[in-house]
This record gives sequence, structure tokens and C-alpha cells, in this order.
Amino acid sequence: MNKSSIRYILEALEKGEMKADDALIKLKNLPFTDIGHTKIDNHRSLRNGYPEVIYGEHKTTQQVVDIFQAMLKNQSNILATRVSGEMAAMITCICPAVTHNAVARTLFFEHEPLPETKSSIAIVTAGTADQPVAEEAKVTAQALGNRVNLISDVGVAGIHRLFACIDVIRDARVAIVIAGMEGALASVIAGLIEIPIIAVPTSVGYGASFGGLSALLAMLTSCANGVTVVNIDNGFGAAFAASQINHLKM
Amino acid sequence: MNKSSIRYILEALEKGEMKADDALIKLKNLPFTDIGHTKIDNHRSLRNGYPEVIYGEHKTTQQVVDIFQAMLKNQSNILATRVSGEMAAMITCICPAVTHNAVARTLFFEHEPLPETKSSIAIVTAGTADQPVAEEAKVTAQALGNRVNLISDVGVAGIHRLFACIDVIRDARVAIVIAGMEGALASVIAGLIEIPIIAVPTSVGYGASFGGLSALLAMLTSCANGVTVVNIDNGFGAAFAASQINHLKM
Amino acid sequence: MNKSSIRYILEALEKGEMKADDALIKLKNLPFTDIGHTKIDNHRSLRNGYPEVIYGEHKTTQQVVDIFQAMLKNQSNILATRVSGEMAAMITCICPAVTHNAVARTLFFEHEPLPETKSSIAIVTAGTADQPVAEEAKVTAQALGNRVNLISDVGVAGIHRLFACIDVIRDARVAIVIAGMEGALASVIAGLIEIPIIAVPTSVGYGASFGGLSALLAMLTSCANGVTVVNIDNGFGAAFAASQINHLKM
Amino acid sequence: MNKSSIRYILEALEKGEMKADDALIKLKNLPFTDIGHTKIDNHRSLRNGYPEVIYGEHKTTQQVVDIFQAMLKNQSNILATRVSGEMAAMITCICPAVTHNAVARTLFFEHEPLPETKSSIAIVTAGTADQPVAEEAKVTAQALGNRVNLISDVGVAGIHRLFACIDVIRDARVAIVIAGMEGALASVIAGLIEIPIIAVPTSVGYGASFGGLSALLAMLTSCANGVTVVNIDNGFGAAFAASQINHLKM
Amino acid sequence: MNKSSIRYILEALEKGEMKADDALIKLKNLPFTDIGHTKIDNHRSLRNGYPEVIYGEHKTTQQVVDIFQAMLKNQSNILATRVSGEMAAMITCICPAVTHNAVARTLFFEHEPLPETKSSIAIVTAGTADQPVAEEAKVTAQALGNRVNLISDVGVAGIHRLFACIDVIRDARVAIVIAGMEGALASVIAGLIEIPIIAVPTSVGYGASFGGLSALLAMLTSCANGVTVVNIDNGFGAAFAASQINHLKM
Amino acid sequence: MNKSSIRYILEALEKGEMKADDALIKLKNLPFTDIGHTKIDNHRSLRNGYPEVIYGEHKTTQQVVDIFQAMLKNQSNILATRVSGEMAAMITCICPAVTHNAVARTLFFEHEPLPETKSSIAIVTAGTADQPVAEEAKVTAQALGNRVNLISDVGVAGIHRLFACIDVIRDARVAIVIAGMEGALASVIAGLIEIPIIAVPTSVGYGASFGGLSALLAMLTSCANGVTVVNIDNGFGAAFAASQINHLKM
Amino acid sequence: MNKSSIRYILEALEKGEMKADDALIKLKNLPFTDIGHTKIDNHRSLRNGYPEVIYGEHKTTQQVVDIFQAMLKNQSNILATRVSGEMAAMITCICPAVTHNAVARTLFFEHEPLPETKSSIAIVTAGTADQPVAEEAKVTAQALGNRVNLISDVGVAGIHRLFACIDVIRDARVAIVIAGMEGALASVIAGLIEIPIIAVPTSVGYGASFGGLSALLAMLTSCANGVTVVNIDNGFGAAFAASQINHLKM
Amino acid sequence: MNKSSIRYILEALEKGEMKADDALIKLKNLPFTDIGHTKIDNHRSLRNGYPEVIYGEHKTTQQVVDIFQAMLKNQSNILATRVSGEMAAMITCICPAVTHNAVARTLFFEHEPLPETKSSIAIVTAGTADQPVAEEAKVTAQALGNRVNLISDVGVAGIHRLFACIDVIRDARVAIVIAGMEGALASVIAGLIEIPIIAVPTSVGYGASFGGLSALLAMLTSCANGVTVVNIDNGFGAAFAASQINHLKM
Repeated sequence: MNKSSIRYILEALEKGEMKADDALIKLKNLPFTDIGHTKIDNHRSLRNGYPEVIYGEHKTTQQVVDIFQAMLKNQSNILATRVSGEMAAMITCICPAVTHNAVARTLFFEHEPLPETKSSIAIVTAGTADQPVAEEAKVTAQALGNRVNLISDVGVAGIHRLFACIDVIRDARVAIVIAGMEGALASVIAGLIEIPIIAVPTSVGYGASFGGLSALLAMLTSCANGVTVVNIDNGFGAAFAASQINHLKM
Repeated sequence: MNKSSIRYILEALEKGEMKADDALIKLKNLPFTDIGHTKIDNHRSLRNGYPEVIYGEHKTTQQVVDIFQAMLKNQSNILATRVSGEMAAMITCICPAVTHNAVARTLFFEHEPLPETKSSIAIVTAGTADQPVAEEAKVTAQALGNRVNLISDVGVAGIHRLFACIDVIRDARVAIVIAGMEGALASVIAGLIEIPIIAVPTSVGYGASFGGLSALLAMLTSCANGVTVVNIDNGFGAAFAASQINHLKM
Repeated sequence: MNKSSIRYILEALEKGEMKADDALIKLKNLPFTDIGHTKIDNHRSLRNGYPEVIYGEHKTTQQVVDIFQAMLKNQSNILATRVSGEMAAMITCICPAVTHNAVARTLFFEHEPLPETKSSIAIVTAGTADQPVAEEAKVTAQALGNRVNLISDVGVAGIHRLFACIDVIRDARVAIVIAGMEGALASVIAGLIEIPIIAVPTSVGYGASFGGLSALLAMLTSCANGVTVVNIDNGFGAAFAASQINHLKM
Repeated sequence: MNKSSIRYILEALEKGEMKADDALIKLKNLPFTDIGHTKIDNHRSLRNGYPEVIYGEHKTTQQVVDIFQAMLKNQSNILATRVSGEMAAMITCICPAVTHNAVARTLFFEHEPLPETKSSIAIVTAGTADQPVAEEAKVTAQALGNRVNLISDVGVAGIHRLFACIDVIRDARVAIVIAGMEGALASVIAGLIEIPIIAVPTSVGYGASFGGLSALLAMLTSCANGVTVVNIDNGFGAAFAASQINHLKM
Repeated sequence: MNKSSIRYILEALEKGEMKADDALIKLKNLPFTDIGHTKIDNHRSLRNGYPEVIYGEHKTTQQVVDIFQAMLKNQSNILATRVSGEMAAMITCICPAVTHNAVARTLFFEHEPLPETKSSIAIVTAGTADQPVAEEAKVTAQALGNRVNLISDVGVAGIHRLFACIDVIRDARVAIVIAGMEGALASVIAGLIEIPIIAVPTSVGYGASFGGLSALLAMLTSCANGVTVVNIDNGFGAAFAASQINHLKM
Repeated sequence: MNKSSIRYILEALEKGEMKADDALIKLKNLPFTDIGHTKIDNHRSLRNGYPEVIYGEHKTTQQVVDIFQAMLKNQSNILATRVSGEMAAMITCICPAVTHNAVARTLFFEHEPLPETKSSIAIVTAGTADQPVAEEAKVTAQALGNRVNLISDVGVAGIHRLFACIDVIRDARVAIVIAGMEGALASVIAGLIEIPIIAVPTSVGYGASFGGLSALLAMLTSCANGVTVVNIDNGFGAAFAASQINHLKM
Repeated sequence: MNKSSIRYILEALEKGEMKADDALIKLKNLPFTDIGHTKIDNHRSLRNGYPEVIYGEHKTTQQVVDIFQAMLKNQSNILATRVSGEMAAMITCICPAVTHNAVARTLFFEHEPLPETKSSIAIVTAGTADQPVAEEAKVTAQALGNRVNLISDVGVAGIHRLFACIDVIRDARVAIVIAGMEGALASVIAGLIEIPIIAVPTSVGYGASFGGLSALLAMLTSCANGVTVVNIDNGFGAAFAASQINHLKM
Repeated sequence: MNKSSIRYILEALEKGEMKADDALIKLKNLPFTDIGHTKIDNHRSLRNGYPEVIYGEHKTTQQVVDIFQAMLKNQSNILATRVSGEMAAMITCICPAVTHNAVARTLFFEHEPLPETKSSIAIVTAGTADQPVAEEAKVTAQALGNRVNLISDVGVAGIHRLFACIDVIRDARVAIVIAGMEGALASVIAGLIEIPIIAVPTSVGYGASFGGLSALLAMLTSCANGVTVVNIDNGFGAAFAASQINHLKM
């Protein structure tokens, strides 16, 4: 609940410009748009130019289309993640200006470009198979206005590949480290450089990987300091957190 | 075993109206209908007008159709949950008066409407993707004679959406709170209002959601008082329990 | 956030009886008492005579004593659960009027008795070893003003013991069913009677009980309708929910 | 390693009828048939007329067909479980005398009927959806020469259905109790009657059933004495164990 | 609910020897003794001379003593399992005739010896550390009137130790196989001999044993036919089931 | 491996100031101190004035004392976490200038104070019992030169307590949110304010908390954007990551 | 990082044959080939004639084809595992000399045959259904230049089948033991013979097998000395480790 | 079952030097010593001079003492692992020549020294807290006649510590890599050097380490080739397997 909004309403009351009953109603109507199955929360995008975000998984195609269309009216940037091929096809029909990244499973509609940060986010993957998560992170970070460097396939089984890229990672303001199987890459990088590391376990692996559990537990129990972790395959969340850090001012 | 039935049989014996052997047989024949693969338990619906219920999952289409047809003879209301498209198609053929809700995956045949309660059940979801569970709960609650209020997509990530609806929830006699992922909505609502809260974890989520386990554990360990929990995605069970509470007399 | 409190503040503003800055401060000071390590939430007890509740586990003895002493100033009833022997000894010293139930691990200070409900809560256990959880539920339910019936040791291995007590359970408005090991009692009772059933899994058992997990899963997956579940060993929570139901008015 | 076979070989040696090297080879060639991918273990069927058994799951259709054909040469009864539709079709082609039970997913070829036991095995299910497991148990028990009584759909949610059948179960020499979800039926029956109970948890259920884990844990932690448990959905194993018990002589 | 008891009551009613109200009361009073915290279920021991059984774990010393004393009045044999040293000391004080087995953690009071079976139960352990579970099984089996053969420490790591004892096991009517760690012994024995095998996983092991889980899962998924399983460390349960089998008549 | 150190060695070689064999040795001797059981990694503290850190858990008292003494020679600040009472006593003996925080289980030796940041880290707990984790985070953050604001006991069960403090949290540059049980506080705060949130699940809770697993899963599956997570009870790690973020320059 | 490579670079520097900046670049460019999504690590194959390896699972067909084509340029042997039918078809098109093993899901391109070892690796399976894992191990071991002996279907349920083959296993230098379900075969073999045993749990089984977890835990907790374990279904990894052992020189 | 023993017995039979009944008895009496609770398996030590091994955990002190004393009669070397302080004290009393390593929890009695291997086993730990497991491995490896190199505390958080020691590891014939928490060290070492790696996960860690589960899963899912894994904290098993490999002849 936004402090200044409350203060505004209270001051209007104090000055007699608003009645108590109206104030109560207003307090209950901080900005969101109700389209029946969904309440679109647009106070963030309205305030700071951030894109509105749709999470597509577990929703029906129709629901995602409805939400996208309602957001279009707000004239904001729109990012949709975990979209199916069907969702992408239908929304591209409605809004041809949208960019579909099939590997990342994202749609991005850029109403107005955000200014790009000077500092960058490094996105590092342990293996080729982590690419979809890395792409989701990359699209998200770019949609949030960040400069991004993607370094692929530098897992610990051939650690000299990492050393060849370590300076690129060190030059970033924050790094997203993406790895499946035993997820050791996050610990190794966090031991080598001193920027914040956001680790993303992936579901790449089989057997005792248990759908990403092995990488998740490994990253949570990292012996290296300063590693924080997001959900399995959550490229979006890692990029969102990295963007918050990358946009911090002194 | 119904006390008054036993007493009736015993009194008949005492009065000499029944022999011991017959009584023993009668005691073993409290009302249910045996159709081979299934023993339909109809003593509840016979007594209080409740619908007979079929749980469709894990049954074959033929079994569900058999049960439905056997129940039709009892001239009671019938509610079927977790029905496949095939089941719905075949039963609608047999009994066109049936109502199919494809989102809820329910079929409802109303032989005679139940009186609606004055007090209501609030059904609240955290996100758009929880809708199928909410619909199952809504259809069930209505089939059991309850007035229902459905409030969608008020999860804690945009908590002002909840505050705009909190009075509607408070006016209910009991609330069903449906949420996947971290399932935090149940705790927040239980901290704000004082009616009984039945929490339904959903399988919405991915990775560390482990098919609804994260929401289930979160709801079971809620720091708010008075939250009780049902199985993952169990909209039917939550509505049944809520209906029992909503029908309680002083 | 209590609707009428907000309205009162807003009306005072509207009438010019209060300034915006003061209102903002007041909005932030809905009743709780800050004693450093703890913020005592007393708006519920102040409003409806309910006891204030302290959860003792994981707190230090000193913290529990501090909270108890701060609550004593509010002249309300106080219920403390999961108290150690040391906590009980120290608080009894400070406040000799307190009642200590060593089996339930509770302390109760009754400043003013609550009126007892006409309808009752049945508390049913599967085995002798479930007694501590049953006692916690009983003390809690009584502290919240409920009439209570305790039926012990009627687990399904000797189901005729249950039948001898089933009418007592049926006469209650709501039943709490407490069982460890395979937790089957909740399903059996819910299949026999039609009042709301709140199931409490207990950590009684060994091996594949996994600290109560077997009973918890069994109760969550009950084939009987209307069973809701609380956390393992959570006698307090079950009693709180049961009390909410038992106090419902039509 | 069969004691009398060893003795036979040793005696032949002692009498000079066999050389040490030949004996060593013989000891290594107790009866099994090697068909490359599989070593068919036929010493049991050869000795006591039991059917040879093929477990079809995880094998390719070709492997199952190969094994079946090799067994046909032994002129023994053959039971195949967990067979796919494709396996059934191909084997029926080769050997039209085979009986296919599609619900049980079994094939049975009866070269020579086994004598049927006087005493019987009771197979009891909690719900309609447990039927495939019950059918697998039934086909297996019959193939092993047992008289079988199948009692369906008497789960604890409507316990009077069980009481109507309890005498039939009590008359068996051993009972197989099949239940999914919370698996309570095994405990209830074991509390009521005194024959050996073999419990089969099934994967029927959803959410916190975790593929049969809830029923499995419940059955393992049964408070009733004398319940033993087999793997989830293992109708074959339960029937095999029950048959061993049913064939015991004094 | 015992059929003949019900019939007796009904016949008394039919003959006018009993009134309906009295019959109802009688039906509710099948034999058990209520001592407050516990309802002692003595209809079994009364009927067939079996000992009454007390499970000591999770009960207080006072509760176990109370139950023991109440049972003493029934002049039956009494077996208590999982008794602490304190329980043993107090009960030995009260009843010096009791036999305490500290390894098995059992107490046995033999009021009247049961006749011993001709056929025997074999109890086989994989390792020395499984001894407490084996002793619990042995004491239980003997208290239930069975002849017992105990074969210790024949685990699969030195399988020739097993072969030296295999004939002893084969001569039993039923075998209890007790093993921790990977629990392989049950599969090996079931592959070698053809009597019913009841497998008991033990909590012996560390790390990936997870308190007996590894042995439990291994025994449940045994590739050998006819293995049934009880809870981890449940020597009592295995012996009870084995005794049921060993007492079966043709 | 520090880039400039390698370059320095290579340049010395190029200029002929160093031999290849010596360079190879030097490359292998980047700064750490080997004291037998431990290799103290001091290149970080040497370079930027950060304290050297000892993790006390799972080490013997003697090992921790050895490490502490070796570090004292480096004349750097020293932070020890998870220290036992015995460790604290022995080290205070050796180095009386050390500060022991018994709740946080930390020791801090400040050889030279670090400059304090202008921006602050907010540390927020859901309940009183989370205090030890919060104290560990606070001591760590302060030892790393951060200004810290601690807000205790604002869990979601009484959410108005949070609203009273929300502005203090919003004024921080990064927030650490500490919660046990269902861990909902992180999602709620992340939904209300837009700074980076590091969530720390705690082992506070019982039953289905499974030692902090419920809170951990809930935080990982948060529906709010930008939440990253560290290990259960890892106050140190959260503070380290927060300090990295708080020290970032534009 | 290869010691002699570093030494070579350093010596070149010392002799003035290389500049520091060039050395730094060289150190970062130990041999791998960057093809965008993948960094092919070819220093091993270049050095010792080992095949380059592609792990196909979780990669797209296009990625696997790209990697294969890039490797072809190195004129080395190439082994691809976990390849789909589509991958096999496309690569066979490009490179008809490749050998596709559909059961093993492998592709092998032999540019130059490796010399075969004198000593052999024994690959032993418990059941027919373990064949795909055994084939993956066999193809891998052969591609790495090992003589291989495959012994199929000698699981513990018919242990005489194992005894008939035990000498063949004993003659190997190292054995790979592959088993699903309860995984007992590894313990039994390790108890009988004294060569190193590498155990491979497989996902063969159902219910309490939990996708290979039961076999994995059983093998990890083996009571037999000297068993080491690889991931579920990891035939490749077992063969790689066995090959390392089989190639060891004295 | 030792092939040559069987042949010997058979040849004696063939030559008429032995009777069939005696042969049968002999076959059943391959060397082990039965001391009641334990069957000491001494055929290995008798044959190749290996020490006899006692695993102390889960055994009583008396049992371990009994076994030790029985072994002393065989005049072989004896290694006892997981011995308690009490066991060590009692056995040192009986046999003062025994060496007690309190950190490793081992006792070693050297009757006759084994010849030491030329090649060595490297034992590498990630952290100081892994020392007890490393010591158990070291004592075991030495008792089995291996030269051992112990490298401590080179975990991936400060990877330059590893590089300083990598040549020592590379010079070994086989390496044991011991790590808790995220267990990444095994993957990194296996990526750098080409000898067989046996990974030992340890229970060092807290929270999401789940008693070593995180390290165990990480090691099993290692992306580096050739890593095999033993049970959590199983220093003995790793050393036994390493010794088998280290003693292999070409």
C-alpha cells in the first residue's frame, strides 16, 4: 500500500475535498484492473515504466490472451513468460509488433524502450542444455532495461573454459549462474569473484537429479559466501532480482 | 451404522415382529446398491436430500456411466467430479438434463433443487491458474445448497487487491482459500478476519513447488490460527467441509 | 486491518477532529504492544474477550516470561502453549493464579471466565499416547469458552470401542480426531457421522511413521468427505478452528 | 541351490559315476534356459507344477514374446503380468489358447490345470478404482490354484458396506486388502478378523497420495496387528504370498 | 464386531429375554475395560488365550503400569513391548513373576503357558546389530505359542554363512528375515526357499540408510516372489503375522 | 585466481626478474596459510579489509582456536559464526578484545573498524523465535561495515504490525526477511516494496515444517518477483550477500 | 589446467620468446572450441586418443548435430549418448560411417580404432529390463578401448543363475553391476569376488522403486565392502570409471 | 563360494577320499567362526593377509569386544571402525598393542605388517570439518597396505588452494574426494585430472544439507566423467574400494 497515495487521500479528507465514504472506497481502489478471472496489478508499470508481466504456465490460452489485450490498453511494455506455441501464435495475430523467443518461451511487446543500464548483468550457464533458462533470463533482463552478457557452457567438468571467461563475468555488476545436475558452477564462480551471484538450478539431468533438486540443494548449501538462489528453472526471477540490484543507486 | 435403524430392528425383534435371523440379515443390509464393481452408498442422499457423489478420476468411463445410471434410479441429485470429456459426453447423451462444467470437470444433475442457505461461503483464489480448483469448489458448494461468493486472483504479491475484497470475505460464514506456489494467502486472510478458513493448496507452480507440496506444507504450518487444510487441488473436499459448517445450526 | 477503525479515523479527519499527519500515525498504530523482541498483537483479545496466546516453543524462557508479563497488564485471559517446565515454574512464581497442565504443556491465566457454549466439541483420540495432543486441544478449547467431551483410545484396531462412543461424538457440533501411525480414525468417523471433522495427525509411531508424516498424508487423502487437517501434533490449532465453528451463529 | 540336486551330484561322484570336472559343470547348470537377453528360471515350475511367470513391464514386446515362446517348449502353465495391448496381441497370435484379461493386464496359458485349494483367498478392495490391482491378484491367485472370493468397494467412508461382507472375508484362510488414498481399510479389517492380512497400497489418489505413498505408509504403520505389506499396485506379489500361505500344510 | 455375540443378543431379544434398550446397551459393551486414558481391548485374549499386549513407546511409565495392573485382573498372559528400563523396574516390583528381556525391551507375564506349535518360525538376521529386533520377534513369537529358530548374522556380504543355515530356514513353516542397510537378505532367501517370508527392515545403518528407509524400499521392491514387509524395526508385528500363519489349520 | 597477481608474475618473468620454476611455485602459492587441518584463505581480507571468517559448526574447539590464532597474526578483523560456548570461552581467554554474542553464536574481533555504509540493510523477522538468525545476520552485516535496521516479529498473522514498519524497510537498500513455519513474510514484503529481498527460511516450527523445509520451499516458490533465498537459518550468508549489494557502486 | 602447458608458456616467457600479454591470452586459451551454444572441450581427446563425448539428453537435435559436426573436424573418435531417433537419423545422414545402437541410444564414430585392453570389464545385469543401461555401458566401454563381457539376467531371485556365471565375472579386472528394484545384486557379487565393483541402479521397477531411488539407496548402503555407485541409469558413467580402472598401469 | 575349495572337495570325493555326506557338511562349513550373535567371516583375511574388519556402530560394546577377542585367536590384523570411546577403552585393556585413532573412531591391531604399495591413494577434503571421515579413510587405506597422501581443506570456495595441490593428487593412482555441503569438489577434481575418483559425501552442513543428502545428490549427478560415489561419511568404504583399485595388477 503506497504511502504517498494514502497521504494524498488523507490530505484531501483533511482539506474537506473528499468525504470519508469516498476515501474508504478510494483506499480500496489502488490501481489494478479486474477482468474477471484476473486482477491485473498495474501500479508498478504505471509508476516506473517497467513492463507488465504475464506468467503463462498453468493459464489457458484464452486467459493469457485476455490479460495481454487488457494490458495493451495501458500503453505499457508487456513481457509474457512460459508461453506455449499456441499462445504465441494467437497473440502475434492480435499484436504483430510482439517479439516471440521460442527458446525462452517469451513474448515481449515494447511500447516504449527503457533506457539501458551502463553496468551489465552476466548470465553464465554450465551446459548447453541450460540455454532455455538462460534465454528467459536474458529476455527478462533486457526487457527491464539491463545490458546483458551471456556466457554459455562453462561448467566445472572443463574448468579452463570458465577461466577463459572469468574476466567478462567479473566486469558485470551482478551475475546469474545457471546450472543443472550438481550445480557446482555457482560455488566456483562465487569463490573467484566478488559481485553478487544469483544461482538458478535447472531441471537438466536425470535420475538422482530429481528434476533439479540436486542442483537446488547444492546451490543452497554452497560453501562460497554470497550466493542466493531462486526456484528451479526460474530464469525470470533471477533476472528480476538481478535487475533490481543492477538499478540500485548509491 | 445408523443408531435409529438399529433401534428399529431391535424393537421389531422385541415385539416379535421379526426373527433373529432376519434381523441379522437386515443389519447387514443398511442401504447401499451393489452394481458389481461398485457399492453405491445412498443412505445419506436418501435421508437429507444431499446429492449422491461420483469421483471420476481413476475410474473407467464405463464404470462412471454405470454408477450414474444406477443413481438415476434413486431420483436424487447427482454430482460427478473429475470427469473426463469422454465421460461428460456419454452421460450427457444418456441424461441431457445434466450440467457439464468443463473447467471444474464436473457434471451435475439436479432432480430437485436444495434450498439455498442464507449465509454464504467465500471462495478466494490467489491466482488465475487456480480457477479449475475454485470452480470445482463452487459447483460442489452450490450443489450442496450453499450461497457462494467467488473472489479471484488476490494473491499476496499484490496485496492491495486483497484489501479491496476483504469485506466480501468477512461477510461469509466460512472461507475457502485456494493458492498454489507458496500458499501464503491463507495465512494472510486468517490473520485479517475471524471466520473459519479452509485452505486448498494447488498444484500450480513448478520446480520447488513439487506438485503442490510447497503450498501444502506452507498451509499446514501457517502461523495464523484457525486454518485447516485439505488435499492438493481438492476443491470438492473443501466445499463439502465448508458446506457442513455453513449448514450448522445453533 | 479493521474496517471500523479505519472508518473512525477517516471520519475524525473529515470532521476536522484530526490532522492528516496524526491520522497517518494512528493508522500505523492499530493496537499492538512492542516489547523489543516481540510485538504483542492484542486487538483480538481487546475486542472479544478471547485469551491472548503465547506459543512457547523455540522461544527462550526469558522471552516467554517477558511476553506473559506484558500481557498481564492488559487484564485479559492468557493461554501459553508448548511451555517448558522451566517456563511454567518461573511464570507460576510471578503469577500464582496461573493453571499449569504438564501433560498439555500449557499455562492458563483466567482473568475473567468466558461464557461456555451450549454446543460442545468432541475430542477423540486413537490411542493412549495421543493424550498430550488431546490435552492441548482440550485446554485450548476450554480457554476459548467451549464445552468439551474427551473420548480416549478408540483407534480402529478395536473398532467396537469406537461404536460404544459414537453417539457422544455425534452429539457434538464439531469433532477433533487425533491419531498417529496410520491415522485411519478420522476417515472412519467421518464416514459414520455428519458433523465437521478436524483431523490432527500425531507424531506417535516409529519407522515409516516418519514423525507423523504417515498420519498426515493419510488424513489429507481421506476417502471420507469433509475431513480437514492441521499440522502434526497441533492440538491448539485444531481447537482454535473448532472453537470458531462452535461459536458460529446462524 | 537345491539340496537334493547337490546330494545327487555328490553321490554320483562318490560312486565314481561322474568326474570332478563334470560335477563342477553340473553344479553350475541347475535348470534355467538362457535365451540371450534372459535366463528363464524354470526349476520351480518343473518341480511343482506352478506356472512360469513373466513380468512384462520395462521389457520390450519382442523380449516378452521370446520368453513366452521359450517357456511354451517346457509344457508348463505360463502367467504373464503387466502386459501391454501389443504384447497381448502378438502372443495371442502365436498361442490362441492364451487368456487375456485386459483390466488385469495379464495373459494366462493353462497347459494343465492345477488342483484348486479347498480354502480360499479373499480379495477386498476399498474402491472401484482399485479394480485393476484386484484383477491382477485374482488372476494370479487362480493361476496358482487357489479358490478366490472378490469383494469390491467396501472402503471405510461407508463402513456398513464392509460389515455386510465381513463374514465372507472371515471365512477365507488369508485376505488381500487393496486400497489407495489413506489405505485405512487394512487396519479396520485386521482389527475385526484374525486371519493373515496382506495389504496392497494402490496408486489411486492424487496430490498428497504421491503415487500411492500415503497408502503405503499408512499400511506399514497400521496399529492393527498382523498386517504385512507389498509394493504399491503389486497385486501379483500379494497373490503369490497369499497362495504360499493358502497352500501351507499342518 | 463378533458375529456370535450379536446373534446371542438378538436371540435373547427374540425370546423376550432382553429388552431393546438393554440390547442396545449390550451391543455397545462388547468386552473392553476403560481405565480413563486407555480402553483395554480384551476380547481376543479372553477368547483364545492369546496374551494381552501393551505397546510401551510414547506412553508414560505411569500409563503402562496402569494398563499392566488392569490386565493382571483378567488373569491372562501379558506381553509388553518397547518398555523402558524404568517401566521394567516398576512392573517387576509390582509383579515379580514377569520376565524382562532388556535387549528385546519386552516384559512377559505368563499366567498360563500356551501349547507350543509343532511347526516353527525361523527368525533370520543379516547382522549382529539387528539383534534387538530379532529378540523382540522371538519373545513375541514364543509368547504367542510358537516354536522359534533364531539364525543370526548371515547377511549377503558373506553369503556362504547363509548357505550353511539354509536348511534350517527351509524346515520352518514361515520365516522372518531381519536386515538393515540395503536389506538384500530377504530377496536372496525368498529366491532360495518356498515358505512365506516376512521381511523386517531395520534402522541399522547410517547416511543414505535414512533410518531404515533404504532397507524398507529394497524389501518392498524385491524381485523375489512372496516377500511381504512390515514397518522398520517392527519385530513384534512380524512375529504376530508369522504366528497367525504358523497357527493356520488346513 | 586473481588476474593482476598472474600478470605480475608473468611480467616479472618477461623482464627476466624471475625464473620459470620460481614462477610456477609462486603461481601455486597465492596467499593462503596452511595450518595442517585447515588452509586459511586470506587473499580477500588482505585486499579489502574484510574480516576473515571462521565457520565454527562441525569443527572441534581446538580447530577453531587454532584458526583464530593463525588469523590473529594477519592483523585483520575476524568473525567467527556458529561458535559453541566452549569455543567462545577459550577464545575470549586468548583474546579478551573479542566480542561474544551468545544469541547470534558469534565472536567478533575488530582490529580496525571498517567505514560504515550510508545506505542500510533492513533485517526483518516474522517471529520472536527467529531472533538467533536475525542476530547472526546483524552481527555479520555490521562486521562487514553496513548500517543495519532490525525489525522484529512482524509476521503475516498480524499483518498490521508489518504496515507500521513498512516505511523503515522501504528506506533500506536491501532487506533480509527471516521467517520460519510457512515463510509467507518474504512474499508479502516483496509485493509491497521494490528493493532486493533476500529471504532466510528458519527451522522454527514443528511437524510439517520438517526443520525449515516448509519455509524454504515457500520462499523458493514465492509468487512475488525478486525474492532470492539462502539456506535454512543462514543469517550469515544472507548478510554477506546483502553487504555485497549494499556496497555496490554505480 | 595442465601443468606442462603452463610450464611451456612460462619457459617461453623466460626465454623471451613470448610476451606477458600473449602468455596471459594463451593461458586463457587452453584448447576448446566455442560454437556459440557450446564450448567443446577437446583437450582430452587430442592428447590420448579418447573419443570426444556428446551427452544428447536435454539438448535440441540441432545442438547435437552442430556439436557432432564441429567434432568431426578434429578427426577424433566421437561417442554420443542418450540420442533420440531424430538425432540418430540426422547424424547418420551427415556421417554414414556412424554406428547407431538403438537400445543403448548411442552413436559411435570411429575415426581410428583404439587398441583393446587385455584385461576386461564385466557388465552384469539383474534382469532383462536392465538391457538398455547395459548396452550404453558396453558401447561406452568398447569405444574407450576395453574388452567387455556382458552377463545378463542373473538377479538374486534365482541366485543359481549367478553362480553359473561367477567365474566369468571374477576373471574381469573390474565389474559393472546393473540392477533396478531392490538392487541387491551388487552386494551379493561384492561379497563373492574381490575385484572393484561399480554399481548402477536402474529405474526399472514401479511403486516404491520411486524411479530407481530404492536401488540407489540399497547400493549406497551395501553391507559388502568396495561397492561404489553412479547415478540411476548411468551406464556411460560406470563404463567411463571402469575404463579408467581397467587402463591403470602398475 | 570359493571355486578352488569346491573343486578340492569334489576331487576328494572323486578319489574316494571323502564321502558324500561329509562333502555336504564340508560345503556348508566354508570358513567362518560362529560366536552366537555373530558369524565372523574370516576366509578373506586367512587367504590374503587382509585385516579382519569390525563395524562398531549399532553394536553393543560387549558384542564388539567378543568379536575382537574371537578374531585375536586367528592371528590376523584387525581393524575396527566406528568404535565408541567405551569400546576403545575396553579393547585397549584387553590388547594394549592396539592403536586407537579417536578422530577416525578406529582401532587397529597389526599382527603382521602388510607390504606397502608403491603407488598411492590421495585423500582430499573440502573442509576442516571433513577430517573425521578423512581419518577413517586414511587409517583404513593404511591398514590395507596402501601409501596415502592426505590433502586437507581445498574446497571450491577458494579454488587456488586446490591448484596448489593438484599435482600431488595427479600423482596418485586413485583419489578419494571428501566433501559436505554442496560437494562440488569431486566434479572439479574429476574435470582436472584423469585418475579414478571416489567421492565421499559428508554430513557436514546444516539446513538444506539434510544430513549429507545435498552432497550425495551432487556427487551422483556430477557432470564430470568417472566419479563414483559411496555412502555419506563412508570413509572406510571409499578406502576399501580405492585399495582394491590401487592393488590391481596389469
